[in-house]
Amino acid sequence: MNIITLTTDFGTRDWFVGSMKGVILGVNPQAVVVDITHEIPPGDIRAGAFALAVSCRCFPRQTVHVAVVDPGVGSQRAAIVVKTSNYCFVGPDNGILSVALAKEKVLEIWKVENEGYYHQPVSNTFHGRDVFAPVAARLTQRVLMDSLGPPLKDCVRLDWPKPKVVGGLLRGEIIYIDHFGNAISNIEAPAKSAGTVCVPDKVQCDLKKFYQEVPAGQPLAVLGSTGYLEIAVNGGNAAQTFSLKLGDPIELA
Amino acid sequence: MNIITLTTDFGTRDWFVGSMKGVILGVNPQAVVVDITHEIPPGDIRAGAFALAVSCRCFPRQTVHVAVVDPGVGSQRAAIVVKTSNYCFVGPDNGILSVALAKEKVLEIWKVENEGYYHQPVSNTFHGRDVFAPVAARLTQRVLMDSLGPPLKDCVRLDWPKPKVVGGLLRGEIIYIDHFGNAISNIEAPAKSAGTVCVPDKVQCDLKKFYQEVPAGQPLAVLGSTGYLEIAVNGGNAAQTFSLKLGDPIELA
Amino acid sequence: MNIITLTTDFGTRDWFVGSMKGVILGVNPQAVVVDITHEIPPGDIRAGAFALAVSCRCFPRQTVHVAVVDPGVGSQRAAIVVKTSNYCFVGPDNGILSVALAKEKVLEIWKVENEGYYHQPVSNTFHGRDVFAPVAARLTQRVLMDSLGPPLKDCVRLDWPKPKVVGGLLRGEIIYIDHFGNAISNIEAPAKSAGTVCVPDKVQCDLKKFYQEVPAGQPLAVLGSTGYLEIAVNGGNAAQTFSLKLGDPIELA
Repeated sequence: MNIITLTTDFGTRDWFVGSMKGVILGVNPQAVVVDITHEIPPGDIRAGAFALAVSCRCFPRQTVHVAVVDPGVGSQRAAIVVKTSNYCFVGPDNGILSVALAKEKVLEIWKVENEGYYHQPVSNTFHGRDVFAPVAARLTQRVLMDSLGPPLKDCVRLDWPKPKVVGGLLRGEIIYIDHFGNAISNIEAPAKSAGTVCVPDKVQCDLKKFYQEVPAGQPLAVLGSTGYLEIAVNGGNAAQTFSLKLGDPIELA
Repeated sequence: MNIITLTTDFGTRDWFVGSMKGVILGVNPQAVVVDITHEIPPGDIRAGAFALAVSCRCFPRQTVHVAVVDPGVGSQRAAIVVKTSNYCFVGPDNGILSVALAKEKVLEIWKVENEGYYHQPVSNTFHGRDVFAPVAARLTQRVLMDSLGPPLKDCVRLDWPKPKVVGGLLRGEIIYIDHFGNAISNIEAPAKSAGTVCVPDKVQCDLKKFYQEVPAGQPLAVLGSTGYLEIAVNGGNAAQTFSLKLGDPIELA
Repeated sequence: MNIITLTTDFGTRDWFVGSMKGVILGVNPQAVVVDITHEIPPGDIRAGAFALAVSCRCFPRQTVHVAVVDPGVGSQRAAIVVKTSNYCFVGPDNGILSVALAKEKVLEIWKVENEGYYHQPVSNTFHGRDVFAPVAARLTQRVLMDSLGPPLKDCVRLDWPKPKVVGGLLRGEIIYIDHFGNAISNIEAPAKSAGTVCVPDKVQCDLKKFYQEVPAGQPLAVLGSTGYLEIAVNGGNAAQTFSLKLGDPIELA
């Protein structure tokens, strides 16, 4: 399998992503590189971890998923490869892989230390190009995992908020706001298919199946395509309309 | 032919487009997916229809063109596949395909109902990933059209403005403003190669062949690369300079 | 080799880049097209030249690099192909290729005049689609160079600023500000690995190896991944914090 995905905070304005792809194609000219996104806010490991987690399983087995939001580049933080029963994940060991890994069966974790796999000369500021890209390309070529470096017992895990039951309510928080202004919560696949959803002091609305069940401009809650409860406005931008922000509490009654 | 194009309002900030590509590659690992644009303003079916119409014919025959600007996702609007003498088009039946279809010879229209072709589980908010992407990938694999669902006699057509001759003038309107601030009209391939173009109360300029025929900073009209008359500023942004807006009347004398 | 890179100011909002890819795939369905960036500021030939120069060498040999920032489109400026010992470069003869060429061994320069290689009909405003894309695709197919048009002795070269030694200081200027707000100078691979870097009246900081060598929010200078000295803020945006601008002098002591 030759598919490699990229999730980064490199933006698309400069040459960073193109450089990574050049290095990948230099190692494996058959590689098929797919951008998840390069617009993770600079340094926002949590947003990168979420984007990777909610998209990685759309890809066929044996896809190599690369995620690089890497404020510690050049320091002692490790570069790691994690092999699961479905995929290989590659990135800095700062938690960016951990939300995706929470739904995968982890088989092996390796620290990447074999400089023979790097793009030379290795810079201190762009391991996306010099370390993660060429290692990912090698992984599409049946490289032996133990040639990467030493095995690790575990990797850095982000402390991810979990919803709680509080007095009959299910209370979570807003963890991502998307391009459409939909506010995605950490309440996953709620058992209820009807109910009332509330962000205290901001908005209250009903749980519906799809956007056009309410009139244009009106708010609703839906089970979004990621499997999480989200607040939307039919034909509008919920986050802007109701000043919804990351971390806002959200309650399902 | 393995080429699939994507025209959407999903933006590039999140994982939506990457997810569609993952689903496509899961069905057909040989697919070559090309982004037309994902920056159609959210819900703007007309802009999506225009972007598709003016780019689809650059692609080789048998390309599968997918367009998803879909405010009615999850409701009763149909998903359709339209086979023309050149291409297959896939999208919601809300008019987004219709401007492209107006220049194609339509052979067959099918309503997509075969859930065996969907990405499971099907969400109510992201048919780009769950319906249109996997169906497009199937279409690159010589799927039988009558296995998609029932045939349709027609599909939703947008009411597209046509220019009119008014007292010796050809009068149209501005239908798209591009990244450079060029204001594209609905006046197609005018017979004249010289003349005066006017947006009343805003700007008047001469019809020229290319931008640098006027001094830097000066306005001109040109027959643009889409085949439509447009107003530009040499080295500048016409829409900003002259406050040009969608729907503004434009006259060629 | 089937790899073609694209560096343009076409933006990603419209259908321009997709149209180029459609034309390329129509000529060579095996082409692998990689975006360097399409967000060069409109008409900014220098920024395009720099982006191409610092990324082109990440790609395998025989890659065809296309760069189109082309305010003179439709006028008498030539379209050229430059063959170096590593790559083919394609673009308008306005200097956009010249910064990359300064590090390459130039073998041949050809003016493109063979309209048989163009996408018909040729517009006067979009040679990216009608000239550069199809010619690049032909170049992946071992087209004979002398079938393109007449040879040229040289091409337009940008006047690129060089750093100078002034009283014990190495003085250069800021030539690019990236997505992270890092301010990249024209001081290449300085011999020193320690020292003080100063933008007069704006910021003074020490030369370090990587970002996290200074506390969060503090400025530093690093040898960036392009091989040039740059000013950054650990976890922040140096250009915004210190109002750094293109052309600002920068001194290494």
